[in-house]
Amino acid sequence: MSHWVRFRHEDKISFGTLEDEQITVHEGDLFDQPKGTSERVPLEAVKLLTPTEPTKMVGLVNNLRAAATKQGLSIPEEPLFFIKPTSSFLPTNTNIPKPESYDGRVMYEGELGIVFGKTCKNVSEAEVTDCVFGYTCVNDVTAFQLLDKDESFAQWSRAKSFDGFGTFGPALVTDIDPETLQIQTLLNGRVRQDYPVSDMIFSPSELVQLLSRDMTFYPGDVICCGTSTGVLPMRPGSTVEIKIDGIGTLHNTYGK
Amino acid sequence: MSHWVRFRHEDKISFGTLEDEQITVHEGDLFDQPKGTSERVPLEAVKLLTPTEPTKMVGLVNNLRAAATKQGLSIPEEPLFFIKPTSSFLPTNTNIPKPESYDGRVMYEGELGIVFGKTCKNVSEAEVTDCVFGYTCVNDVTAFQLLDKDESFAQWSRAKSFDGFGTFGPALVTDIDPETLQIQTLLNGRVRQDYPVSDMIFSPSELVQLLSRDMTFYPGDVICCGTSTGVLPMRPGSTVEIKIDGIGTLHNTYGK
Repeated sequence: MSHWVRFRHEDKISFGTLEDEQITVHEGDLFDQPKGTSERVPLEAVKLLTPTEPTKMVGLVNNLRAAATKQGLSIPEEPLFFIKPTSSFLPTNTNIPKPESYDGRVMYEGELGIVFGKTCKNVSEAEVTDCVFGYTCVNDVTAFQLLDKDESFAQWSRAKSFDGFGTFGPALVTDIDPETLQIQTLLNGRVRQDYPVSDMIFSPSELVQLLSRDMTFYPGDVICCGTSTGVLPMRPGSTVEIKIDGIGTLHNTYGK
Repeated sequence: MSHWVRFRHEDKISFGTLEDEQITVHEGDLFDQPKGTSERVPLEAVKLLTPTEPTKMVGLVNNLRAAATKQGLSIPEEPLFFIKPTSSFLPTNTNIPKPESYDGRVMYEGELGIVFGKTCKNVSEAEVTDCVFGYTCVNDVTAFQLLDKDESFAQWSRAKSFDGFGTFGPALVTDIDPETLQIQTLLNGRVRQDYPVSDMIFSPSELVQLLSRDMTFYPGDVICCGTSTGVLPMRPGSTVEIKIDGIGTLHNTYGK
């Protein structure tokens, strides 16, 4: 298992593996046999960036059984999704800005993120392990009241696409079994979401297979696996953490 | 007025201005004072690429009055949109592949594309001209029967995101007044769409202002302004052309 991070240190952007609060700087391409160097940087000396620079983030709707039950939603036959643009991406330890063009409730959604390591299409079950580089934490932030603001058109894309609404990190973790993971969201330090990946309607492996039938994924692209119960609005000044044991904690403030 | 094209010639990717079937190769950054060289390449010797490499394409729903009237849709109070990922982009003179994971009707939608030339947010009316680099033709291809396949969730993002469903080009044209333009779509040589930009509910200038309130746009990003009446399915083997006088003709086949 490796914890890959991307970071800025003394005005230079680098990447490396994190262990015991120390980063071992690497060279080359993260997705193509990067080489470790002798350079070590303490975590506290860097500003973490998003672990990858995705061309897209695909977000799942209605993919957790507990949430479907609570909201009275039927179990979908196929994955239901939207797309978050690159302009929404934000790393850990930053502030998610309050949208200036929307005044309603803004909700966190703690999620597992699947990160691709190869360009791939039509991934078979046997190929999933080879196509997925690792996993990360995602806060799939949502301008909730846009979803039913216009009666003729549910504004999913808009609700999910404000700057900073696609927050992910802190690390990208390899060689971990996603089926064993538990996702927690803490709002102002209090646990508000706590659910297992095993409750997903479409498992991470199935999502990779099914979504890659529709579109090509590139190295660094992210699938956010959907969220469960316990979604609440964030008030300006809140802190929100998405915590997955084995991956780490994505820590942000909102609307400061 | 300049017609900018991006192209591959003898295994090298370049860009330049097109005039009388000749390309004047340029150097530097398209968006930052590119410099003309003495090199000329005939159009027939190159393979055209998408005129820019956008980080996102934002597509409008229900933005033409004639289409709203015909479909009995109310006039929206705000622009309604979805997002198309980079994996859907395709240039002129290529084949739009038939999706393998969807068997229903696939429709063309001929549209005007607005292309940004700067990183911008919260663009004022006075700043629009400075933020927009130019205009292009878009075929916003749609897997129509996905929109109401799942009763609980209209699959707009999926319907718009298959590989090749975000086709645009052939050129990016500067110093043109979008309000004067007319968009035509020809299916197998026959005109099927023919509508003016002046029929838009939100004009190109208003779209730039309103959408940039929600999210940051980067150089090369595209807003597709929505389509009008005359949308039809493409059968495998069809040719489809989006023609805007003053810009050019985006020419593709479908499902060959």
